[in-house]
Amino acid sequence: MTTAKKASSPTGDPFLLTPGPLTTSPSVKEAMLHDYGSRDNTFIELNANMLESLINIVNGQGTHVSVPLQGSGSFVVEAMIGNFVPADGKVLILVNGAYGKRIVKMCDYYKRHYIVQETPEDVPVDAVQLDKTLAANADITHVVVVYCETTSGILNPLKKVSDVVAKHKRGLLIDAMSAFGALPLDTKEITFDAVVASSNKCLEGAPGLGFCIASESAMVKTEGNSPSLVLDLYDQWRAMQKTKQWRFTPPTHVILAFAQAIKEFEAEGNVSGRGGRYRDNHAVLISGMRDMGFKTLLPDALQAPIIVTFHMPTNPEFDFDQFYDGLRDQGYVIYPGKLTVANSFRIGCIGRLGKEQMEGALGAIKGMVETFGISQISYD
Amino acid sequence: MTTAKKASSPTGDPFLLTPGPLTTSPSVKEAMLHDYGSRDNTFIELNANMLESLINIVNGQGTHVSVPLQGSGSFVVEAMIGNFVPADGKVLILVNGAYGKRIVKMCDYYKRHYIVQETPEDVPVDAVQLDKTLAANADITHVVVVYCETTSGILNPLKKVSDVVAKHKRGLLIDAMSAFGALPLDTKEITFDAVVASSNKCLEGAPGLGFCIASESAMVKTEGNSPSLVLDLYDQWRAMQKTKQWRFTPPTHVILAFAQAIKEFEAEGNVSGRGGRYRDNHAVLISGMRDMGFKTLLPDALQAPIIVTFHMPTNPEFDFDQFYDGLRDQGYVIYPGKLTVANSFRIGCIGRLGKEQMEGALGAIKGMVETFGISQISYD
Repeated sequence: MTTAKKASSPTGDPFLLTPGPLTTSPSVKEAMLHDYGSRDNTFIELNANMLESLINIVNGQGTHVSVPLQGSGSFVVEAMIGNFVPADGKVLILVNGAYGKRIVKMCDYYKRHYIVQETPEDVPVDAVQLDKTLAANADITHVVVVYCETTSGILNPLKKVSDVVAKHKRGLLIDAMSAFGALPLDTKEITFDAVVASSNKCLEGAPGLGFCIASESAMVKTEGNSPSLVLDLYDQWRAMQKTKQWRFTPPTHVILAFAQAIKEFEAEGNVSGRGGRYRDNHAVLISGMRDMGFKTLLPDALQAPIIVTFHMPTNPEFDFDQFYDGLRDQGYVIYPGKLTVANSFRIGCIGRLGKEQMEGALGAIKGMVETFGISQISYD
Repeated sequence: MTTAKKASSPTGDPFLLTPGPLTTSPSVKEAMLHDYGSRDNTFIELNANMLESLINIVNGQGTHVSVPLQGSGSFVVEAMIGNFVPADGKVLILVNGAYGKRIVKMCDYYKRHYIVQETPEDVPVDAVQLDKTLAANADITHVVVVYCETTSGILNPLKKVSDVVAKHKRGLLIDAMSAFGALPLDTKEITFDAVVASSNKCLEGAPGLGFCIASESAMVKTEGNSPSLVLDLYDQWRAMQKTKQWRFTPPTHVILAFAQAIKEFEAEGNVSGRGGRYRDNHAVLISGMRDMGFKTLLPDALQAPIIVTFHMPTNPEFDFDQFYDGLRDQGYVIYPGKLTVANSFRIGCIGRLGKEQMEGALGAIKGMVETFGISQISYD
């Protein structure tokens, strides 16, 4: 093991170079040091401001509504499927990774009619094929796409998909979990019925909260669709319009953290500022890793600046568990691969990380490679 | 308004005399000042210890299993219904308040077969009638009961219900949300298939996490029952057995707070220590309120030491909104009533509150009554 100085965040924790939960700022965490009653006026106002800020991020004032939901990102993805795809609807699911496959599973549970259009994990979803499928299948009411598939880190062509779906007058549902706040998503550019994301990805809050932003005209049609009471976004929306309160106990501390995280997001320059920092992190990471001989799964044109998949070296000395533990001991947590097609690992560029942390991680990786006695990373 | 000194918790917030979210200790909140990766060994170990502690609370080592779930308490109540009552089962729901009615609504969403046995909000559920109904209806597979109905604060006769259900060899499902950790619930006394509760009631953690404790023999039979992927407790249980990890992003900060809260619960003397403090709070509250002339909804024998419903005085000078705001300004947040049968308000005895806070709240209430110019609380 290397004897390099251990890096840590201001609160003494390793840096999380993962798809989430992520490293958050000290001030975001400190916002959780308070207990609020859920019916308290201060909390109610903070909650309302949070929902308005989310609409502002997609430039949806006056046309779109936002609804929060307790739970992880997958909770609000399932809620989106259950609310927006009616029992007599049919959804086309664009799949190129584990998160697309998870949506298929949700449709199985909910007994929703669906068809799948799948591409390999290193190939973007296919808008041309989508055009043909929609033309040939008038019964498809909705299309679901994952904006950035964190399985590989691939960026799907959201604008092309949105244009095709709009041309055929179907509803577009977007899982923007790991992209929201860092990659462009403007209602004036992208037509969608609903988009879902969570508190703990590029908006850099604590995990435990998801949200759905929907066009109001699509949302009003979802009444009675949800197979689940707790995941009923329509019911949550209407109740919050009426009382400004959550139907069921809100995760107050997580919401306080999220409200602070949104302030810091706005102070950083919104999507362009936040996305810019991540793109810089990503450039430092990719360039440093390539200098050491590591290979990325994806060509640069397909890579989102969110998380990067690297092929696992084939040097016999390269032991991933030791590599992971060694980096962790030096203050950098990376992530195992999730690919079905290739042995790999992933390094994230999001959360409260900057150039210093990316360079620190690269230094630790270099140290581990040297510790293994590897002079040249190889891929046989 | 009175000019009394404003009370506040060590973190500067008003005390929450509500059914939750509650006032938590500073150390519970400070536990959230750290970012953990969900695959981190430290986190995984802490998570496993938390699940084991929950089993210990019901004395269920070796016979029972615990499964955590993201979201509010209602999420895990719905999950319990969806997992334990199969599509061809039939559930008898004992209702005497809003939380029982919510379970009826969940069964409607899930299209589960059910019948309701309802008593008024100020009357405990009826174990004698239950015995007759189960004898007459062999098709009833499960019974659901709410241990303490926070609608009124009434204590339901769990032991009697459990004995009747066990006699008829049906499965008992318990919503112990506001009772778990403060009122007795021992697997050697009470036979149940499953009990659900949450992090932010009597265990005094932050909200955002629920859990189900089930007899292992009942849990293994739930495979394939859940209508929802994210609420599939069986799937969550099996995945956690296999990988020790959550299926979907856990609310890491809320879990850190909950682990700390459980430590403090154990240090206070478990159920007897925690319940003892709440009973003391409750005694101080009831006695002080009665001294001022306020009337409780329930006779003492039916009252759980969790939250107390008071009839709304009929003095024309008594304005509840002013009363609520005035107390809040002095550092004590109470709760509106939820009764359908009578105009009322509620004051909670749970959370990180002791005699000092209960007496402080009583002083503030006395001050408000004087501010209103009321010499005698009246009920015409």
